[in-house]
Amino acid sequence: MAKRFAAAFLSLCIMSIAPVSASEDLLAAAQKIFEPIPLAPPELPGNPATPEKAELGKMLFFEPRLSASHAISCNSCHNLGLGGTDGAPTSVGHRWQRGGRNAPTVLNAGFNLAQFWDGRAKDLKEQAGGPIVNPIEMASTKTDVVALLRTIPGYNVAFAKAFPGEPSPITLDNAQKAIALFEATLITPDAPFDRYLRGDENALTDKQKAGLALFMGEKGCADCHNGQNIGGGMYARFGATIKPGVEFLPPDDKGRVAVTKDADDTYVYKVPTLRNITLTAPYFHTGKVWSLREAVALMGAIQKGDQLSTDETLKITAFLESLTGAQPQVTYPVLPPDGATSPRPEL
Amino acid sequence: MAKRFAAAFLSLCIMSIAPVSASEDLLAAAQKIFEPIPLAPPELPGNPATPEKAELGKMLFFEPRLSASHAISCNSCHNLGLGGTDGAPTSVGHRWQRGGRNAPTVLNAGFNLAQFWDGRAKDLKEQAGGPIVNPIEMASTKTDVVALLRTIPGYNVAFAKAFPGEPSPITLDNAQKAIALFEATLITPDAPFDRYLRGDENALTDKQKAGLALFMGEKGCADCHNGQNIGGGMYARFGATIKPGVEFLPPDDKGRVAVTKDADDTYVYKVPTLRNITLTAPYFHTGKVWSLREAVALMGAIQKGDQLSTDETLKITAFLESLTGAQPQVTYPVLPPDGATSPRPEL
Repeated sequence: MAKRFAAAFLSLCIMSIAPVSASEDLLAAAQKIFEPIPLAPPELPGNPATPEKAELGKMLFFEPRLSASHAISCNSCHNLGLGGTDGAPTSVGHRWQRGGRNAPTVLNAGFNLAQFWDGRAKDLKEQAGGPIVNPIEMASTKTDVVALLRTIPGYNVAFAKAFPGEPSPITLDNAQKAIALFEATLITPDAPFDRYLRGDENALTDKQKAGLALFMGEKGCADCHNGQNIGGGMYARFGATIKPGVEFLPPDDKGRVAVTKDADDTYVYKVPTLRNITLTAPYFHTGKVWSLREAVALMGAIQKGDQLSTDETLKITAFLESLTGAQPQVTYPVLPPDGATSPRPEL
Repeated sequence: MAKRFAAAFLSLCIMSIAPVSASEDLLAAAQKIFEPIPLAPPELPGNPATPEKAELGKMLFFEPRLSASHAISCNSCHNLGLGGTDGAPTSVGHRWQRGGRNAPTVLNAGFNLAQFWDGRAKDLKEQAGGPIVNPIEMASTKTDVVALLRTIPGYNVAFAKAFPGEPSPITLDNAQKAIALFEATLITPDAPFDRYLRGDENALTDKQKAGLALFMGEKGCADCHNGQNIGGGMYARFGATIKPGVEFLPPDDKGRVAVTKDADDTYVYKVPTLRNITLTAPYFHTGKVWSLREAVALMGAIQKGDQLSTDETLKITAFLESLTGAQPQVTYPVLPPDGATSPRPEL
């Protein structure tokens, strides 16, 4: 209900934060609205971190055998070399089928209030089970994934280490736990804006500060894009003020209404994080906009009914460029070979 | 000519190395035929190693934008987590087309006398250019790859660092050089058999030693599978003694004759390395055999006309299991984002 209220709050544009000018005021205002990415991964409730579980999660994240074809892994669409996404409007899945929505970044995803564009998974663990069994994505089944993992001697060892004391540790639930734990480590601290939030006023250029002032102030971007992930904390209607055309809002995807069955959630989506936004083009749930400037201008128009000037767009874009943090350093995992009875890829 | 002679030599089975029994004799005989993988990567002639060039090569190896779809990288089929191959009979390429032959491992590939199953590329550098422009693999073009790389600011920096002093460093030739240099680092030293070759008689089990004796001795496997890569050093007819059925030797793939135009090279292929063979199923150029034991038995039958006993097959298989070395430790690269004019994926 709080989320619904927030979306309505946005779409009605009841209030925008007052413009700020003085440098100290700007920092103080920003510190009230945003929060830096922590330097260490957060803990997951009910899923305590161990090196063995995180290592298993990394293996599974890069494991193409979780897909029916044995050719598609989590990393195929959430490529850790490409800002945790795949640089495509929608992703390539099983037998070259195309996904319905742009692959959201896995980076900092643990800081979102829920997962998927429509928030249909409550957390990273629940999300991890989705694409594996989606027939147009990895196209496996729960039964097949577990059966396959159980035939691989190396995974029997790795799951036993990650879930000690469990009589039958290879379950999809445990696989999802391990993947979630690894994904929770995929944070990007120390962006220039994080250093700014921690008090380093020189971390942003003057242009970026001007963009931040617009973003928080009169342009109202921070009404939705706020908090630790500068987004990811609420839902909002895409086209809150002006409904865009079908190129940006295809009629066969009505957003969160499919989850809540509440007509008010038609065309409502999770507000995406803007962290690492320079790395994650193309933009929006359709992935139809490749230019960050165009994306900023479109948001101003359809969310706020505001025709941003070129100068305003460039300043806000410059601010968004300060949101790119240190990318995760990941050692590529060595995956265990098939066992004698392992099933073959379905190609 | 020497290679042709070697193939003929094999197929006629003129000579096999005499059986060896005593432990010291076995080691001494093995040291004459095989050579350990070095602990450091070899130098590439005309392509001196620098950290900048190797890093660029790693980026390009994992770079899906080298493919038309921006979804397929070198690592898609030569997965460093899966023994440098993809665990499929033949690989998935552009728009789910299937490759013609089983993807050979990239691990230790620099020690082969040539690249591809038919040896049509003389070295790693020449090989690296092949799949990128193959319409059923990555399906890009030379022009498109270079044009794309030149639009990406991060690659302009990386190529300039890797090829200092060159006025226009982004060329396909330089990309291939960098990939080759990275691939040359993908060696797997310190397999049990390497420790054995260096004099540690305890590195192999008695069963593995018995397998080695058969492999070198009466079964004649080492007639072809010898040297540093235990294969990879010559060409041989698949079915040198008994021509196998179409399931293993499809009539539309006649092997090296397509390269040399010499009828004697019909059904002749490069002898593959047996290093890391436990990681690289399925086997042979068609990828139709999933079990290493079955592969060993088939080789005995069709290459040597020898019906190996179960005991012999198991011993030779045990020896082959000693060929798995330390897998490369690779930090997953962070790839630079598109530039403003970068071309879009063709999906």
